[in-house]
Amino acid sequence: MRNLRLLVAYAGTRYAGWQIQPGRQTVQGVLQVCVERVVRHPVKVVGASRTDSGAHASGQVASLRTSSNLPADRLRSSLNGVLPPDIRVFELVDAPEEFHALGKAVRREYHYLVANGEVLSPFRNGFAHWVRAPLDRGLLREAARRILGEHDFAGFAGADRGDVRTRRRVEISDWGEEEDLLRYRVVADGFVRGMVRALVGTFLEVGRGRRHPDWVDEILRARDRRLAGPCVPAHGLYLRRVDYA
Amino acid sequence: MRNLRLLVAYAGTRYAGWQIQPGRQTVQGVLQVCVERVVRHPVKVVGASRTDSGAHASGQVASLRTSSNLPADRLRSSLNGVLPPDIRVFELVDAPEEFHALGKAVRREYHYLVANGEVLSPFRNGFAHWVRAPLDRGLLREAARRILGEHDFAGFAGADRGDVRTRRRVEISDWGEEEDLLRYRVVADGFVRGMVRALVGTFLEVGRGRRHPDWVDEILRARDRRLAGPCVPAHGLYLRRVDYA
Repeated sequence: MRNLRLLVAYAGTRYAGWQIQPGRQTVQGVLQVCVERVVRHPVKVVGASRTDSGAHASGQVASLRTSSNLPADRLRSSLNGVLPPDIRVFELVDAPEEFHALGKAVRREYHYLVANGEVLSPFRNGFAHWVRAPLDRGLLREAARRILGEHDFAGFAGADRGDVRTRRRVEISDWGEEEDLLRYRVVADGFVRGMVRALVGTFLEVGRGRRHPDWVDEILRARDRRLAGPCVPAHGLYLRRVDYA
Repeated sequence: MRNLRLLVAYAGTRYAGWQIQPGRQTVQGVLQVCVERVVRHPVKVVGASRTDSGAHASGQVASLRTSSNLPADRLRSSLNGVLPPDIRVFELVDAPEEFHALGKAVRREYHYLVANGEVLSPFRNGFAHWVRAPLDRGLLREAARRILGEHDFAGFAGADRGDVRTRRRVEISDWGEEEDLLRYRVVADGFVRGMVRALVGTFLEVGRGRRHPDWVDEILRARDRRLAGPCVPAHGLYLRRVDYA
């Protein structure tokens, strides 16, 4: 059996997230069915990150085992030929036997896009979170800076997730600006479920001037999800990159 | 009666173009119905450009007359409140009595986006024309340069349009590159129907190496639409800006 590694991008609007769920259309589910149409045997597609319903990805990594002997390039183009246009495979390569998209990931990068202005561009609708109120860029950056390094992120975990391990090391946490968008970029060795959306919701409260950046430190210290800001919607969230050892 | 000037953006995917047509959903039609809901009397919305079915706009200009005495800011936010999210009014201001969005326009700018690569990004699907074959950037620019100045564009008119006046002055015609896209930018005192899509279809033939840039001069000279390249799809086309005297 060959072990394949895929680099996958998707616009998540029409999907109930990555992970297969009974009765829901998911990216993993559609990808798996399409791979099976190409390789003509059942497969199990594993993904690096279970992205939320409506969230997007430009750098999801997936792996799967197949007995097909089609060349990798042919597999990729055949797969893109049967996939819907909102899911695309950018790379498909043979990987070492031991490669596993979920288990072997050592670093993940997420972006969160905020459209800040009086009117939301029709071209950003569904692809960025619209905040009409003015946001102080300096305060956003200062708030984001407070989570750098290793912390217990229990205070930023999704309400009902119950992750056991909530300690993570954050390497990059910063806001940039491009065209009509604010872009939050975060890189860490891993993320607690719901973490990016709770962080951004918290930073936006600081950016709107409702809270002091010290509030971020307090939430980290207290490890109490009820203290953090409201969760921002998934349609601003992008899985950008996954690194392996 | 007040005369209003609107700056309108729309993602044209769901619409049969700008202009009202019986039994079709059009941007002008939806905008007109929404304005009437806000001002509570019948209106006639005039647009600077009748964009094609599926084409987009970030700088369409419209004008309309109303007896409403709501402040312009309130009119704009009420209108955006009833419009679907793929149509947005960015500006709405009181204009001089004689302003007319169509009749008074002296210059228009269109962009055409081409995604050139092995795989079309799911985020560009419906918003750029995908060309898989390699394109020579130098040849694209050389071909585009040939239409600068005043010419008879009958050779680039849409097949069944029958425009009477086909002489136009082109001020800017150039290709740029940004992120994963090629962007063709054209500014002229006016455009024959179908002209931008026929021009881009012709330039792409040159960029693929199938034709020499001199071919553009030949089409201009011959004024024969059958000589030009195939028309590219409308979903790569954007009305970017309209200027008035």
